[in-house]
Amino acid sequence: MSGSFPQDSVGLVESQHMHFDESLRLDCGRELPAYGLTYETYGTLNATASNAVLVCHALSGDHHAAGYHDASARKPGWWEACIGPGKPLDTNRFFVVCSNNIGGCHGSTGPTSNNPDTGQPYGADFPMVTVRDWVRTQARLADYLGIARWAAVAGGSLGGMQALQWAIDQPDRVGHAVVIAAAPRLSAQNIAFNEVARQAIRSDPEFHDGRYAARGERPRTGLMLARMLGHITYLSEAAMGAKFGRDRRGSGEGEHGDYGFNYDVEFEVESYLRHQGQSFVDRFDANTYLLMTKALDYFDPAADFGGDLERALGSTRSPFFVASFTSDWRFPPAASREIVRALLDTNRRVSYAEIRADHGHDAFLMPVPRYQAVFSAYMARVAEEVGA
Amino acid sequence: MSGSFPQDSVGLVESQHMHFDESLRLDCGRELPAYGLTYETYGTLNATASNAVLVCHALSGDHHAAGYHDASARKPGWWEACIGPGKPLDTNRFFVVCSNNIGGCHGSTGPTSNNPDTGQPYGADFPMVTVRDWVRTQARLADYLGIARWAAVAGGSLGGMQALQWAIDQPDRVGHAVVIAAAPRLSAQNIAFNEVARQAIRSDPEFHDGRYAARGERPRTGLMLARMLGHITYLSEAAMGAKFGRDRRGSGEGEHGDYGFNYDVEFEVESYLRHQGQSFVDRFDANTYLLMTKALDYFDPAADFGGDLERALGSTRSPFFVASFTSDWRFPPAASREIVRALLDTNRRVSYAEIRADHGHDAFLMPVPRYQAVFSAYMARVAEEVGA
Repeated sequence: MSGSFPQDSVGLVESQHMHFDESLRLDCGRELPAYGLTYETYGTLNATASNAVLVCHALSGDHHAAGYHDASARKPGWWEACIGPGKPLDTNRFFVVCSNNIGGCHGSTGPTSNNPDTGQPYGADFPMVTVRDWVRTQARLADYLGIARWAAVAGGSLGGMQALQWAIDQPDRVGHAVVIAAAPRLSAQNIAFNEVARQAIRSDPEFHDGRYAARGERPRTGLMLARMLGHITYLSEAAMGAKFGRDRRGSGEGEHGDYGFNYDVEFEVESYLRHQGQSFVDRFDANTYLLMTKALDYFDPAADFGGDLERALGSTRSPFFVASFTSDWRFPPAASREIVRALLDTNRRVSYAEIRADHGHDAFLMPVPRYQAVFSAYMARVAEEVGA
Repeated sequence: MSGSFPQDSVGLVESQHMHFDESLRLDCGRELPAYGLTYETYGTLNATASNAVLVCHALSGDHHAAGYHDASARKPGWWEACIGPGKPLDTNRFFVVCSNNIGGCHGSTGPTSNNPDTGQPYGADFPMVTVRDWVRTQARLADYLGIARWAAVAGGSLGGMQALQWAIDQPDRVGHAVVIAAAPRLSAQNIAFNEVARQAIRSDPEFHDGRYAARGERPRTGLMLARMLGHITYLSEAAMGAKFGRDRRGSGEGEHGDYGFNYDVEFEVESYLRHQGQSFVDRFDANTYLLMTKALDYFDPAADFGGDLERALGSTRSPFFVASFTSDWRFPPAASREIVRALLDTNRRVSYAEIRADHGHDAFLMPVPRYQAVFSAYMARVAEEVGA
């Protein structure tokens, strides 16, 4: 069966689930009486459990980071570019773990899960979660898997923020922190985009204050708008220009006189965005989207230290690999450089790569050769260090 | 009464209206049997009618470009920074005219006007309009006002595109073209943002395919979302950061632990955006917003010349003043430079100013000293030229 998958893919994978029957106190002050984490692993844990790498997912990601769920699956996991035999997170050497975050909608406990107190889905009653909460749950998963210390904790975007938080909150359990296309905190513009997305969802008449599931409805329109908007911020202007430009759609192609002069799709970029929005609605939950955007807004490790990022990083012990992409305007290189500077100022070891790429923020998901090369080189040293 | 207004303001102004009882053939192929233009004028037309300047408004602007509608008006016209005694468009020298575009919602014939065929508001039946259509209507207004030739046609953003189109379509009637914070065409990213705004409006259940007025409803939510989104693109990331940063709103101010962990406003930038969106809904029509975004998408004078902007500009005869702002990411300096390059390549006289300003696209509306200085210097030469 694995013959049908690319040689450098981990191939067929299965999700696993772990139920934690201990309560979890959250940053928001509320408590989850119990919760479950859905996760996947790739590669083999060695005898000393020294070769484990935790991968953290971004806003709309999940635990399916690599490989295929069945032989007919059209798309592999979201970080297929970086996880697999011979890839940066080389599954011939590392044991890679990726879990769906709590609050998510792909298996871990979240708004679509049943609330044990009511027997009904949590929906809007699911508590707000933070990046620190995720680190706590992932630490328990590490305990369960017998991993005392990760060779590395890695992620891109919101996943990179989790890697950063791991290094701060659990310094003894992090060998290396790999922080890609991330930021030490959201900018006002980032928050503004999140707020428009939230308003789009929350003002959808089928949102019903988050209790749409109980009515058999879904705020499809609002979630579609949120995703369309998000997508614009994931791509660079140049990438959008190169991919679509002002290319026209369908029969109306040609000169000025041939416009449709109506609200049907006239430009390819409109068609692309509508498709992105519509297909997202079928695979994502609106309450989860809201929670993830709030976790992003709240993330700000320096805030507990009077805004001093250097002090916030004072507890870390791991070396860092930080990478950014030149055309990323969501979390631009300047945001990564701020992390790097604070790490250097507090005398941490840090490797920084600012990678020329036209794809915008989404570059962290893509097989950009220079990115794969520097990431591979860094992880090869990590592998040697841990005897993987 | 004028004593209550700033010395450098045109003070109290009144709108005028001109009804044109001739039909107008539009680019979309449809015809308006008749139409009206609401406009304002500032300053005095000289005996030879050589000192008239046409000002063109942007997406959400209107004919009220300067001065105040009554003594208690809190806000002056939208280009108060540049129109008035001693300002770049010096009303001691120039006779400044600004009309509301057809398709608009502030007096000129548009979706909220009555369709003479039905006696009901046009609503969604109002035809699509283009920048070229606006030039045609403004040319008729010039005829009516006895202005054979404008000393200058000027505008920012979509207004700058109108100035460019005037120079192309009516070369004998344009003394100078003043094109500020504009672009020769929208980028894929620009179209993408417009498309999200349109989807927000059109998917609002109270939109009713644009026939909301007949039902006494309005797509308030959709229009609010469109405006919130637009507003993000009008401000630079730096300006938003400087103005709001991660400043917190209300009682929840302080450290991480003090977040509200709910969907109320937590950051100042959220409050600002909601306010911008909500107040816009009270003064703007959703069908007009849709029309204006489409006029933007369609604008592409080079398209009729196989994409060759230089050839598109071949018909122009006027010198140009082109200005852009360094932090404008909606229509960035590169877009203005493309216009300048094409003008130079076709041997037109062009003055170009790339102005350092942190305000983003909205800088063209603001009293940025360097902007006012170069704009004033240019217009002073125009005034001398026409004996104003």
